[in-house]
Amino acid sequence: MLRLKGIIAAPFTPMKEDGSVNYSLIKEQAELFVNDGISGAFVCGTSGEGLLLTTEERKKIAEAWLKASAGRLKVVVHISHHSLVEQAELSKHASANGADAVAIHAPSLFKIANVDDLAEYCKVSASASPKTPFYFYHMPAMNNTALPMIELLKKVSNIPNFAGIKFTYENIMDYSLSLNFEKGRYDVLFGRDEIFLSALAAGAEGAVGSTYNFAAPLYLEIMNAFKSGNMKRAMELQLKATSMIEDLVKLGGLPAIKSAMRVRGIDCGPCRLPLKTVSAKNADEILKLMKNFMQKEGMLNDSKIYSVA
Amino acid sequence: MLRLKGIIAAPFTPMKEDGSVNYSLIKEQAELFVNDGISGAFVCGTSGEGLLLTTEERKKIAEAWLKASAGRLKVVVHISHHSLVEQAELSKHASANGADAVAIHAPSLFKIANVDDLAEYCKVSASASPKTPFYFYHMPAMNNTALPMIELLKKVSNIPNFAGIKFTYENIMDYSLSLNFEKGRYDVLFGRDEIFLSALAAGAEGAVGSTYNFAAPLYLEIMNAFKSGNMKRAMELQLKATSMIEDLVKLGGLPAIKSAMRVRGIDCGPCRLPLKTVSAKNADEILKLMKNFMQKEGMLNDSKIYSVA
Amino acid sequence: MLRLKGIIAAPFTPMKEDGSVNYSLIKEQAELFVNDGISGAFVCGTSGEGLLLTTEERKKIAEAWLKASAGRLKVVVHISHHSLVEQAELSKHASANGADAVAIHAPSLFKIANVDDLAEYCKVSASASPKTPFYFYHMPAMNNTALPMIELLKKVSNIPNFAGIKFTYENIMDYSLSLNFEKGRYDVLFGRDEIFLSALAAGAEGAVGSTYNFAAPLYLEIMNAFKSGNMKRAMELQLKATSMIEDLVKLGGLPAIKSAMRVRGIDCGPCRLPLKTVSAKNADEILKLMKNFMQKEGMLNDSKIYSVA
Amino acid sequence: MLRLKGIIAAPFTPMKEDGSVNYSLIKEQAELFVNDGISGAFVCGTSGEGLLLTTEERKKIAEAWLKASAGRLKVVVHISHHSLVEQAELSKHASANGADAVAIHAPSLFKIANVDDLAEYCKVSASASPKTPFYFYHMPAMNNTALPMIELLKKVSNIPNFAGIKFTYENIMDYSLSLNFEKGRYDVLFGRDEIFLSALAAGAEGAVGSTYNFAAPLYLEIMNAFKSGNMKRAMELQLKATSMIEDLVKLGGLPAIKSAMRVRGIDCGPCRLPLKTVSAKNADEILKLMKNFMQKEGMLNDSKIYSVA
Repeated sequence: MLRLKGIIAAPFTPMKEDGSVNYSLIKEQAELFVNDGISGAFVCGTSGEGLLLTTEERKKIAEAWLKASAGRLKVVVHISHHSLVEQAELSKHASANGADAVAIHAPSLFKIANVDDLAEYCKVSASASPKTPFYFYHMPAMNNTALPMIELLKKVSNIPNFAGIKFTYENIMDYSLSLNFEKGRYDVLFGRDEIFLSALAAGAEGAVGSTYNFAAPLYLEIMNAFKSGNMKRAMELQLKATSMIEDLVKLGGLPAIKSAMRVRGIDCGPCRLPLKTVSAKNADEILKLMKNFMQKEGMLNDSKIYSVA
Repeated sequence: MLRLKGIIAAPFTPMKEDGSVNYSLIKEQAELFVNDGISGAFVCGTSGEGLLLTTEERKKIAEAWLKASAGRLKVVVHISHHSLVEQAELSKHASANGADAVAIHAPSLFKIANVDDLAEYCKVSASASPKTPFYFYHMPAMNNTALPMIELLKKVSNIPNFAGIKFTYENIMDYSLSLNFEKGRYDVLFGRDEIFLSALAAGAEGAVGSTYNFAAPLYLEIMNAFKSGNMKRAMELQLKATSMIEDLVKLGGLPAIKSAMRVRGIDCGPCRLPLKTVSAKNADEILKLMKNFMQKEGMLNDSKIYSVA
Repeated sequence: MLRLKGIIAAPFTPMKEDGSVNYSLIKEQAELFVNDGISGAFVCGTSGEGLLLTTEERKKIAEAWLKASAGRLKVVVHISHHSLVEQAELSKHASANGADAVAIHAPSLFKIANVDDLAEYCKVSASASPKTPFYFYHMPAMNNTALPMIELLKKVSNIPNFAGIKFTYENIMDYSLSLNFEKGRYDVLFGRDEIFLSALAAGAEGAVGSTYNFAAPLYLEIMNAFKSGNMKRAMELQLKATSMIEDLVKLGGLPAIKSAMRVRGIDCGPCRLPLKTVSAKNADEILKLMKNFMQKEGMLNDSKIYSVA
Repeated sequence: MLRLKGIIAAPFTPMKEDGSVNYSLIKEQAELFVNDGISGAFVCGTSGEGLLLTTEERKKIAEAWLKASAGRLKVVVHISHHSLVEQAELSKHASANGADAVAIHAPSLFKIANVDDLAEYCKVSASASPKTPFYFYHMPAMNNTALPMIELLKKVSNIPNFAGIKFTYENIMDYSLSLNFEKGRYDVLFGRDEIFLSALAAGAEGAVGSTYNFAAPLYLEIMNAFKSGNMKRAMELQLKATSMIEDLVKLGGLPAIKSAMRVRGIDCGPCRLPLKTVSAKNADEILKLMKNFMQKEGMLNDSKIYSVA
């Protein structure tokens, strides 16, 4: 089964000023990812405003990423849809176009109340493309469904293409138990950039997140320092990442993080409602903040700056 | 602006055993509504599993209801969609086909945190069909967005087609304040069948709900008793309704309520995931329960039984 | 078993500027209650800042109320304490001093997760004074324990002195079911002044609240109008009460409501932390607001003004 | 200001079968702590059922710990009380008896809604013993108050004896920011044993918890492995601790953890309501589980087994 290692970015969906999707930028995003040492893209996820797009837009974005990646990035397509019929359509489309995996999160409206029902929901969802690895995307902060993942893993052995979990939650105990379930049977990717190092200490080998879009070298260096036993350096760098995220959260949360992409020369444009595009003033402040940060860290000149000598 | 009075049912979406929509039953549902004295249909709402349907299915269901109603029922089409593009498409479709109103609820994934943002979201949503009355559907239990409606009403005077609120929440204080805002400027429909009479006592003149699908005569009689000052009778009947709902909730919640429709001779079939269709055993128990209840109340012989002499 | 009917006020605990209890005012409060037609006092409850007092203060306040009431008011003493040992001490003290009943709410720190455990907790709590009627005080907004009361009532038949529930929650369905459980076996008092009339419509015959401290005549008149079938007048008056409460909530919540007591000539002083005493400016605004309101309603000249001719 | 490093245990309060405090066992607990290399005791905390005790019991327990420690353990006395008068009494008592620090958590009933109010509450609480270091005990899971600690730290510079935070929450981002606030100005102790290593990776140098009561050598070894750069071993050991905690949570949560103390030869007896003492059957299972675990890890023969050679 698929194993995603290293840094997987959840790309922003580039939009024009009128709010339509700017498909032409996806190639640039993909090239940047490859250059930065990113190993995969989690397409149309939360950072990509996936649920705010039409089914047709989601298909075209998936196609664009699969084409632009050209096998250099693993591509996971997030296909969650309240309608399982449309979700299956997205699943088959992703699979037919060569996606490495698909992913869904728990529904946010009619909520699932127990692990058995969640396993059943995964089973039906995964069956749309039985040959394509399937990830469950755990993100209680968005969908208010905080069921224990270690218990879910005990119920999914009857789903042949269940690959693992994108674990976007601060409950590192559940993360650690899930990661170590049946000697690491499943791929459990961590989804909180702000505590990436704490997840490495819990055993993470792969992570999916939004700030990886523009700051992957920083996180790769944290990973390198960690692997080489240099915890002091890893901790220093993680604190820098955490502080950067704290600043971006204060400047607007996800829309601020999307805006920060401009520091790498790619302007992904506005957000869709109910997300609130950052004001021009905040956008300038974000750009300045990120420039200062990256210059100080040497990331603007050479994305490989952090690589261990 | 539109004023919906009396009982508005939120029809179940009839489905075949394979889960596809059974459009042919809609005509029967509409006839039953008219016969029962129901004044409107809130189509593709929560009870109608609206969000679990594809955009195409939602359009066809709206068309079927508008045709079957033939002007005898007011038809409100629930058009909520995470994608405002698809939502606008649903809005225009409903409007073009003669819907009396459209409605949206707050998004359940990227949540709205304050009333100003909610008013903005309504404004954009309502603008898709500027000539069609627009309702905000308040249902915190589903989307975890419990903002005060009295505050929302203070911010929507710049939305020309804002008609009112479908208020599905037990906060009767907020309900009462909203109803009386600017001498009753907006239409505020109550959405909790189980405390219908308490809402009448707070001033409600219209209500939208799921058990009205099969038990409207009971609620109309509560309304009649209330209007004629016979609170004792109104209270007795409401207690019967509340107990019936308690039983149905225990037997499976919304899927049990959908199954209860069989007592009126219309089998709306299974539910879509993540809702869990009731088991055959529970379905039988529900039917028996409802038959006993309705026979005892005289509702099976003559839907007008309760009408005040 | 005890049945509390009509309006039961939850008295504020009068405090001096230095924060110590001003016991001498309790006699004045009790006289006002009697004159206003109030039938009982719920002492050291939430409005009385009961949990913010020492055990000794709580005893002295209970004594003062029992003495001042002189049999003219039913006195329920709220004895909740995290330590069941101190709670039992408060229970025995209240009982020995002639309290008509005692009451506890669910613990707010180590929370109770199911109805069986809550029934057991009530059983142990009630056993401290087995001859004194015992009420469970349901107030999820404060202690985050929202278990269904109808289910609790099914489990308390082995508690001989279980008298009923002070139901301070907006779930009128559960209220109605509890009130009607076993033909009204238990006394279920309603605790939300702001929707008092909606509770009457659900069958309430007694209510406990904070704004009854100064505005009981208004609520008694709502009750009179309701009983005489004059729903129009009852609804008009309830809307006035609801609007008054809305204003007080905006001006500071419980501390504003405590401050409003000045309109009746009794200054109950500051609140204890973590409650925040209203500022002098807000206190003035509250007094003016209440004076205007009460003059307009005729309540300052003659507390019986509303009595049905 | 005080800095607590290493492992601080939150001792269970030993109780006799009748539920009264078994003060005589405290000396044994203290000796075990010293032998196990524990550096401090957080007395009458959550694990110690502090809030379920009377004020007198809390004083006597604090005295017993201060006497038994004889300067070999740092003793922090948890003094939280809804009544700030009784809390001040506990504070002065602890201070007079030589406590190294006192601690409070946010009130669980009348909740504090913003950081300014929390800082004010801390200021008043800390002023009771102005010479004694004061900790804020952050534990949202118990008191539903999840304010950001990094923001609290920005507001407490006017509290001369503010020493730091006992951070019992899984939000490691906030933990990390708090720890690094003003170059580590405050002592921020971590309070989740189950993710101890992840906290070390975020910079923790001290931790307070319940399973340290009986398994401190395991955690000290994790700390040693971490410090010596042996992350592989640290991760292996943490996984063992996490799995042990998972088992104990399933067997009854805190009461199971209290029962587990028997594996070290100290029977702390039952719990107080609303906590539910584990059944005899579960107690046996817990003992067997812990014996197997500790024998396998070599902790029963020699508590120093893990020390790095």
